[in-house]
Amino acid sequence: MLLRRGLHMFSGPLRAVQRRTVNSWNYSRSLGVESILSQFKSICGEEGVSVGEAVREQHGRDESMHRCCPPDAVVFPRCVEEVSALAKLCYVNNVPMIPFGTGTGLEGGVGAMEGGVCLSLRNMDKILDLHKEDFDVTVEPGVTRKTLNTHLRDTGLWFPVDPGADASLCGMAATCASGTNAVRYGTMRENVLNLEVVLADGTIIHTAGKGRRSRKSAAGYNLTNLFVGSEGTLGIITKATLRLYGIPEEMVSAVCSFPSVQAAVDSTVQILQSGVPIARIEFLDDVMVDACNRYSSLSYPVNPTLFLEFHGSENSLKEQVEITEDITQTNGGSHFQWAQGAEDRKRLWAARHNAWYAAQALRPGCKAYSTDVCVPLSRLSHSWHVGDGNFHCLMVRALALDGTCTGEHGVGLGKRNLLVEEVGCPSVQVMQALKHTLDPKT
Amino acid sequence: MLLRRGLHMFSGPLRAVQRRTVNSWNYSRSLGVESILSQFKSICGEEGVSVGEAVREQHGRDESMHRCCPPDAVVFPRCVEEVSALAKLCYVNNVPMIPFGTGTGLEGGVGAMEGGVCLSLRNMDKILDLHKEDFDVTVEPGVTRKTLNTHLRDTGLWFPVDPGADASLCGMAATCASGTNAVRYGTMRENVLNLEVVLADGTIIHTAGKGRRSRKSAAGYNLTNLFVGSEGTLGIITKATLRLYGIPEEMVSAVCSFPSVQAAVDSTVQILQSGVPIARIEFLDDVMVDACNRYSSLSYPVNPTLFLEFHGSENSLKEQVEITEDITQTNGGSHFQWAQGAEDRKRLWAARHNAWYAAQALRPGCKAYSTDVCVPLSRLSHSWHVGDGNFHCLMVRALALDGTCTGEHGVGLGKRNLLVEEVGCPSVQVMQALKHTLDPKT
Repeated sequence: MLLRRGLHMFSGPLRAVQRRTVNSWNYSRSLGVESILSQFKSICGEEGVSVGEAVREQHGRDESMHRCCPPDAVVFPRCVEEVSALAKLCYVNNVPMIPFGTGTGLEGGVGAMEGGVCLSLRNMDKILDLHKEDFDVTVEPGVTRKTLNTHLRDTGLWFPVDPGADASLCGMAATCASGTNAVRYGTMRENVLNLEVVLADGTIIHTAGKGRRSRKSAAGYNLTNLFVGSEGTLGIITKATLRLYGIPEEMVSAVCSFPSVQAAVDSTVQILQSGVPIARIEFLDDVMVDACNRYSSLSYPVNPTLFLEFHGSENSLKEQVEITEDITQTNGGSHFQWAQGAEDRKRLWAARHNAWYAAQALRPGCKAYSTDVCVPLSRLSHSWHVGDGNFHCLMVRALALDGTCTGEHGVGLGKRNLLVEEVGCPSVQVMQALKHTLDPKT
Repeated sequence: MLLRRGLHMFSGPLRAVQRRTVNSWNYSRSLGVESILSQFKSICGEEGVSVGEAVREQHGRDESMHRCCPPDAVVFPRCVEEVSALAKLCYVNNVPMIPFGTGTGLEGGVGAMEGGVCLSLRNMDKILDLHKEDFDVTVEPGVTRKTLNTHLRDTGLWFPVDPGADASLCGMAATCASGTNAVRYGTMRENVLNLEVVLADGTIIHTAGKGRRSRKSAAGYNLTNLFVGSEGTLGIITKATLRLYGIPEEMVSAVCSFPSVQAAVDSTVQILQSGVPIARIEFLDDVMVDACNRYSSLSYPVNPTLFLEFHGSENSLKEQVEITEDITQTNGGSHFQWAQGAEDRKRLWAARHNAWYAAQALRPGCKAYSTDVCVPLSRLSHSWHVGDGNFHCLMVRALALDGTCTGEHGVGLGKRNLLVEEVGCPSVQVMQALKHTLDPKT
């Protein structure tokens, strides 16, 4: 399996498992896959291989604005042994491979820029080894977060990482997905205990050892977190062991608007500093609130606004809310709008979750370029207005404020140049060397 | 810089920054360091280089039973540029390097098994860039966790990871240190935002980019967590940017004894499942409680015992304690012994913190072999009696229960063979390949 050279090592983000490889020397799109189709079929069966145009198109794009780049074939392996056999075959024949989960990514990661074969992992959809007492579960790449949480419903447990889309959990691991409740529960980085990965040459490894699921381990290098966030460029994730949490007794959401961005930022800092174990806290500026109002027919005051959520027991919620309300009022925040029932909370967060579509609606006829940046909290008020369309400047600005060009979506196709600026040449060279080590045909 | 081959890539744990390299071909102990001493002096000054026996002996051991292996020289660099210059010099001359923080490790990591030069980092002791509003701080390797917390005292913030010893924070990063309150605050893995690292050839990198300190980033491979826990074998950590927390309003500790190990384990599972944000929870079996009683002149009932600590506001503590007491009583636990004031809490935890010395006192005349293993919670009651001296069996047993041979101390010198058994040959081969990539003279 061959990979892009240089910066191209970072093949793409998205919420789906993915892997991009390049025909560095002798893969020919016309001959490359054709000649080994029969071998694909001998591995995955007749039904498990498709070269139909519709199927290829469907696997060449995610939910971003990046153009569709269909692969030359799509295969549907049913188990890790088949993934390994496919990888070996591709490795020997220099055929690029691109793993595909649910295609819900936002940075163009699944496009087959140089052709090759897409491995759709949707048929590997088993939920394995649920250990209720140890708060862990192992899933295959076809399992999405909503499917897992439905399965867990009667156990009192849930998996809280929530990027919005109903993404594949292994894909979320590949892209280090996160979401609005990362403040309390962390991102995928903090919640993956072990991974089964098929390497470029077909070798199967278990990053923390086969079947291991200790909460903490200091045994050898942290391979798990090397693959989490590698955006499918170092291997194909075929199993993920995840940490689970007890479902909170009560949840309550709130919206609060502020006279200025600084007042909202100050409140956020003080809430975190007070030790309130807040579950979610998200900021929308006035332009975005206005867009959300129009898009979702709401009537929030057109001001800088915080969306908040609290999880815990009834007593603890009362206290969390009291402290938070105290802080926001000191900073000139309006009274909270509350939502406690599941339906009310859903409606309140719908405004935030639809922000993406609301932003697109600001400029009818344009397709939005969704991306994400992240700066230290205190720099938030110096940074930008979300929704002003000036996205490239915005990313450069975030870097100047000690931030990152991507908080959770990933580097993908669009941010490869920014990566050098962010981590520096020596670090990118180390990343390239690691890439070359794990995928020597790069 | 050269490193051990094969399994020897994992040079050792301990709480200190460390790096072990091997004279794979032409480093001669007698000539190797002698010939470049003057060059060391031109980098670090006359005062910054020592070949005195006492200084070398002091830098050849940690707090474990592993025998003292003094280096051929000890150097005291004052800044990252000097560390880089020293590394370049050692790299060209094939001289092994061993970084040294505070020497408080427990797995023999600082011993100069094949000679070479020890880099004591104690003179690099600045606390840099405290960002109170963003909850982060950057420290050099000479800064210990107690020094940092003293420095932070008036800010309302603290760094909670607490392995017991007053270790160097960069050393804690190198060994992925953890401690009794990891349940609430995580280990070093969750609390390091960025590292400055000098590689084998002297290259200086910033794992998340120079000056970056975003809470979450999905930009490129996670180099930070590759170096966290690498036990000094991939590079010398010269700066760590750490996540800080608000000091909790109140803290309260408790001790509770149980009729059986199973009852204590069931309580632990149920407490975690109930969502109580418990800060510390530690288990001692009857043999260890007896030893602690004798060693610390205490009178705890000689039963399986849980030590617990709760952090939060007064109201929230009350609720956490109520829920916990409910659960323990259902499982046959005795009434709690409480400690709320700082002094009382200290006395209560002293018993637990002295367990190491208490265990040694069980067998007068023997030096204890301290190590640590980790198994999934539900397997705890099937596993072992702490303090029975049967440590090797204990480690093998932990692996059979899906656990790890090291929860926090590291692999070090004593557990290298167990690593293959734990993570499997293909994973160890990947680790070796990564090691070779970052330290090509291995």
